[in-house]
Amino acid sequence: MATSEQITARPVMTDQDASAVLRAAEARARETGARMVIAVVDGAGDLKAFVRMDGAPRGSIEWTIDKAITAASFGMPTHVLTDGVQSSPPVMASMASLPHITLTPGGYPLMLSETLVGAVAAGGGTTPDQDQVVAEAGVAALGSR
Amino acid sequence: MATSEQITARPVMTDQDASAVLRAAEARARETGARMVIAVVDGAGDLKAFVRMDGAPRGSIEWTIDKAITAASFGMPTHVLTDGVQSSPPVMASMASLPHITLTPGGYPLMLSETLVGAVAAGGGTTPDQDQVVAEAGVAALGSR
Amino acid sequence: MATSEQITARPVMTDQDASAVLRAAEARARETGARMVIAVVDGAGDLKAFVRMDGAPRGSIEWTIDKAITAASFGMPTHVLTDGVQSSPPVMASMASLPHITLTPGGYPLMLSETLVGAVAAGGGTTPDQDQVVAEAGVAALGSR
Amino acid sequence: MATSEQITARPVMTDQDASAVLRAAEARARETGARMVIAVVDGAGDLKAFVRMDGAPRGSIEWTIDKAITAASFGMPTHVLTDGVQSSPPVMASMASLPHITLTPGGYPLMLSETLVGAVAAGGGTTPDQDQVVAEAGVAALGSR
Repeated sequence: MATSEQITARPVMTDQDASAVLRAAEARARETGARMVIAVVDGAGDLKAFVRMDGAPRGSIEWTIDKAITAASFGMPTHVLTDGVQSSPPVMASMASLPHITLTPGGYPLMLSETLVGAVAAGGGTTPDQDQVVAEAGVAALGSR
Repeated sequence: MATSEQITARPVMTDQDASAVLRAAEARARETGARMVIAVVDGAGDLKAFVRMDGAPRGSIEWTIDKAITAASFGMPTHVLTDGVQSSPPVMASMASLPHITLTPGGYPLMLSETLVGAVAAGGGTTPDQDQVVAEAGVAALGSR
Repeated sequence: MATSEQITARPVMTDQDASAVLRAAEARARETGARMVIAVVDGAGDLKAFVRMDGAPRGSIEWTIDKAITAASFGMPTHVLTDGVQSSPPVMASMASLPHITLTPGGYPLMLSETLVGAVAAGGGTTPDQDQVVAEAGVAALGSR
Repeated sequence: MATSEQITARPVMTDQDASAVLRAAEARARETGARMVIAVVDGAGDLKAFVRMDGAPRGSIEWTIDKAITAASFGMPTHVLTDGVQSSPPVMASMASLPHITLTPGGYPLMLSETLVGAVAAGGGTTPDQDQVVAEAGVAALGSR
């Protein structure tokens, strides 16, 4: 039998963490006057917390969850992933057609002790920049835990 | 031009309402010691608010969202819908295989002024009864608005 | 900033663990003369290791991976999950129609320090019992780590 | 009745072959320090053997399996297929959106006696070149059988 010392462990994001990330992003969205969808997933891309603010387009629901899944699946912000592939049209087209993978800005990995523990994404902003500002407020909330 | 008096309107559930429903259900789950998934959708079955408590099985994510979608889609609690169809195995099997429709207890419509405005569902409890108790706490939170 | 003491952590199954589970199950299958598919997934149901022995039916590929996903998704052996739902035809039909959920024997959760870290499944045996014997050999290999 | 001399046959890749290909590619990945996903499929594109090394991004699971399926489906390395279609954006976009077809480097057909018997692919490398080097080590392992 393995002793606890031998067992490899990794940090996890609790539901309290996920809630703090969600609230921080939502507060930032309200400051900007935007009506947003905000999603938090765990390191495997499974939904942990979600809110759709009044007036946010329903077309942003799946899209925003997919941004979070994409950031968790590749361990990098979605705009960085996009920058890395857009020089190659075949790679870009292939990635964009993978289920739940989206090459749009606004999804960010969440890290604890240099380990991927989840991702947060925002969508529905009137500009991609707005999505990023709101999601980044969520990232900052976990960092200050 | 229609004056504001002439425009037909229906009540809607705000994001504040959805948040209150979610928090009440989550508080009830914590009282029972259960680790649950809780989902709130609007009247069209589109996700409005969601939380997955630590330890809730990931198999309950889609299942619980589907319970809420089912309650919103037919305007009745999922256990009532199930009672109505289980005397006919072909009807039951056909309904169960519709995308996002599930014949399992724990999903409830949310009403304002006798109008369907959404649904709440709970999943991951150790018994179907536990799912129902938690979701009913969410229903009560909207009723007392 | 959080100190490492404050961070919640959980044990994980390494690729060496997954390989040991796979090899033990495959060895057991060869002893029985069966031609099997064996799959190991992590705690989120994502594929970690897989082998299809010569002569194993291709229809068992997705089926066996789904058995492992099901065991990881609900944290229990698939035959136990099945026993729990078969008294209710509507629940049974609803679960069976969820994507990647299967109510067939042969999937088992993998635990380390009482924490779900993955699942192993076997398929393609000539009897459900054979699937279970082979998968259980995989479970035993992790326990003795 | 046909005698054994009269029966038309084609070479096949055994599970031992597939295992040798997988191990050679995995060993090459460890030499380079990369955390990779490696997949081996048969000539029909059905999964035969698979490993996900610790730290490999989960976004590479389906992608890598798809690289192997693509190489088996067209009987050529994925980078050669990509070179052939990228001069026509409509052809490229149409191919990239076919289920399980991906126009990204790192998938190679496996041949025995000039016959297609399967494919191997690697993914998750920090550069496409890394994916190719690792998959090529798998190809070489079969060639030396």
